[in-house]
Amino acid sequence: MFDFEYYAPTKVEFGKNSLATLPALLREQGAKKVLIHYGGGSAERSGLLDKVRAAVKEAGCEAAELGGVQPNPRLSLVKKGIELCQREGVDFLLAVGGGSVIDSAKAIGYALASGGEVWDFYERKRKPSGCTPVGVVLTLAAAGSEMSNSSVITKESEGGDIKRSCNCEYARPRFAIMDPTLTFTLPPYQTACGCTDILMHTMERYFTSGGNMQLTDALAEGLMRTVIANARVAMAKPDDYSARAEIMWSGSVSHNGLTGCGNGGGDWAVHDIEHELSGLYDVAHGAGLAAIWPSWARYVYKDCLGRFYNFAVHVMGVRPCGTREEVARDGISAFESFLKSIGMPTGLNALGVRPTDGEYKFMAERCAATGGGKKGSAKVLYAADIEAILRMAGDV
Amino acid sequence: MFDFEYYAPTKVEFGKNSLATLPALLREQGAKKVLIHYGGGSAERSGLLDKVRAAVKEAGCEAAELGGVQPNPRLSLVKKGIELCQREGVDFLLAVGGGSVIDSAKAIGYALASGGEVWDFYERKRKPSGCTPVGVVLTLAAAGSEMSNSSVITKESEGGDIKRSCNCEYARPRFAIMDPTLTFTLPPYQTACGCTDILMHTMERYFTSGGNMQLTDALAEGLMRTVIANARVAMAKPDDYSARAEIMWSGSVSHNGLTGCGNGGGDWAVHDIEHELSGLYDVAHGAGLAAIWPSWARYVYKDCLGRFYNFAVHVMGVRPCGTREEVARDGISAFESFLKSIGMPTGLNALGVRPTDGEYKFMAERCAATGGGKKGSAKVLYAADIEAILRMAGDV
Repeated sequence: MFDFEYYAPTKVEFGKNSLATLPALLREQGAKKVLIHYGGGSAERSGLLDKVRAAVKEAGCEAAELGGVQPNPRLSLVKKGIELCQREGVDFLLAVGGGSVIDSAKAIGYALASGGEVWDFYERKRKPSGCTPVGVVLTLAAAGSEMSNSSVITKESEGGDIKRSCNCEYARPRFAIMDPTLTFTLPPYQTACGCTDILMHTMERYFTSGGNMQLTDALAEGLMRTVIANARVAMAKPDDYSARAEIMWSGSVSHNGLTGCGNGGGDWAVHDIEHELSGLYDVAHGAGLAAIWPSWARYVYKDCLGRFYNFAVHVMGVRPCGTREEVARDGISAFESFLKSIGMPTGLNALGVRPTDGEYKFMAERCAATGGGKKGSAKVLYAADIEAILRMAGDV
Repeated sequence: MFDFEYYAPTKVEFGKNSLATLPALLREQGAKKVLIHYGGGSAERSGLLDKVRAAVKEAGCEAAELGGVQPNPRLSLVKKGIELCQREGVDFLLAVGGGSVIDSAKAIGYALASGGEVWDFYERKRKPSGCTPVGVVLTLAAAGSEMSNSSVITKESEGGDIKRSCNCEYARPRFAIMDPTLTFTLPPYQTACGCTDILMHTMERYFTSGGNMQLTDALAEGLMRTVIANARVAMAKPDDYSARAEIMWSGSVSHNGLTGCGNGGGDWAVHDIEHELSGLYDVAHGAGLAAIWPSWARYVYKDCLGRFYNFAVHVMGVRPCGTREEVARDGISAFESFLKSIGMPTGLNALGVRPTDGEYKFMAERCAATGGGKKGSAKVLYAADIEAILRMAGDV
């Protein structure tokens, strides 16, 4: 078991009536001028934005607005947001949306509080010295950014877009309003991508050859079982409040740090490989993770057999018959079947991605380079390993 | 499933080397004059207090000190602390100890920030308007006060001491340093009392006829299994780092709110009955809880059968054979056996308490009165019910 820090200060207001708490939360934060940051037109069409505008007004705050955040949020819009906030004197960033909107708000917040070129933080050239406070009205259960210290931004680039993360405690949102009914209208594909992302945030922490903690494992396994069970329900019945609520709260708990305490930081290779993939091809993050995980798992499981065995038995319900390797492999297959059952790709073909030889090499080398030449902890992976995993995924 | 708020902003530094973070944490909090608040002589004898004094100095802070906090911390010492802090201009309260020391610090903090008679907050006559920041160096895994919003204080009184709680979000500690090695020297009885208290913080939230949430239940059940398994290890091998760490982190997670999300607040009747018992007899809190729970459980389980059934199967490992009532009863018996196995009393006789008829009535009526005449949610209990439960416990 490793020493750890746990810090998840976000105040969560969860449930059907949670939006009603927004004025009080903004007052509590001392917000004066709020940027309402959002994505596409659905928040406008559903009437949510009007409710948010009214709540901001009720709190006695002035407002500025910036919509148009895309999935895999772009650096160019972040820069637009920085300029807007500086011009308007914004002192509080209210993200109305899912992970992309929240991550975009965090990036704006870093720049406002820390100055200088914001991309430097994502290239790890500098660390943010602060972040303008961020609050969240969550409309999508997936990224867990509403409680996490993480922000992922994509820089448009002619030689292939670059997707990078900046994890920093300043970026933990001050509050998160979570109303599961706001996710009723999500298309099935987005629901499935979200559930995959949620699962993977705990799986990245769970599959490690580092330390382990019984409590952390029990919490992680309970969370994974809950998401798997309720993903199936929400796919069949999109307005099932209970299933949507289980998934939404799991999304936050999965990425707020709790499911990794004592595990020494986890693995994260699948996330990092996916960042290269979705940087190059702009695929949905959850789908990209699903497309890589089975190949990654089969490539590494022998080096992390105990965890894969436990995952098979405690999460996927595999009967512990046969050798430990057989049980572990059955667990991987069972999870792969689950992914397929919710319509997720389990290889690059189903994702619609067919990299060239050069692209395989490019993604593998760029991924390894962000870790100083290697990635992962369940099994340490070098560029050649990452390329092999990508090619395995390409064969499916 | 009920709407809920979750707010656990305490920064946790966990592990063998966690005390080294104290100077940075104090600087981060902007502390200038620190009250070092502690209990008996063990923190002095072990050298811990000297390390804390050195860290406070290293942080550039001045210090005042107040020791002598007893289990079931007394209002009289709280008042002494308030005077001392006002005289010395203390702006940060550093609790070095377990729940009693932390609760005492919180009470001092309420009074410093809110003014007026501090006992009013515990009698629910007024609400605190703030709390001077509290930090924790934890030496005892039990109360969970290091992350909770709770403080329990005992007022000395000729007609029987009165133990009351004040739960308020201002009181959540800013940071908690948790080094499991500091608990190696705890006597077995205190270890067992602590484990019982930890379990009961989640059990009070789990046994409810209100809403429920699959994720919350899975986390709660995982936590209970972890504590039960590791309590046995720590009793047999007090310096088992892993067991002590599992118990310590479980203690925080069990009472920071996580294991009750969506459950509508939980039951808490056993805690409230125990508060009357330990107010009158000054017994250890964990032992008092153990002495009451089996009688409470047998009195209420039919009204909350689903939860008792799940507890039996998912926590105690009872095989789901026979009727649901039989399985539920087997679960209660199994937990009772566990309590006995770690040396806890499961009735008032083993606790050394033999109330008179008048005392039974007095405790039951005073307990019910604090809830406006009734207590509990698994089954709503009136004074006559509480008296019946206490008498059942008295027969064991």
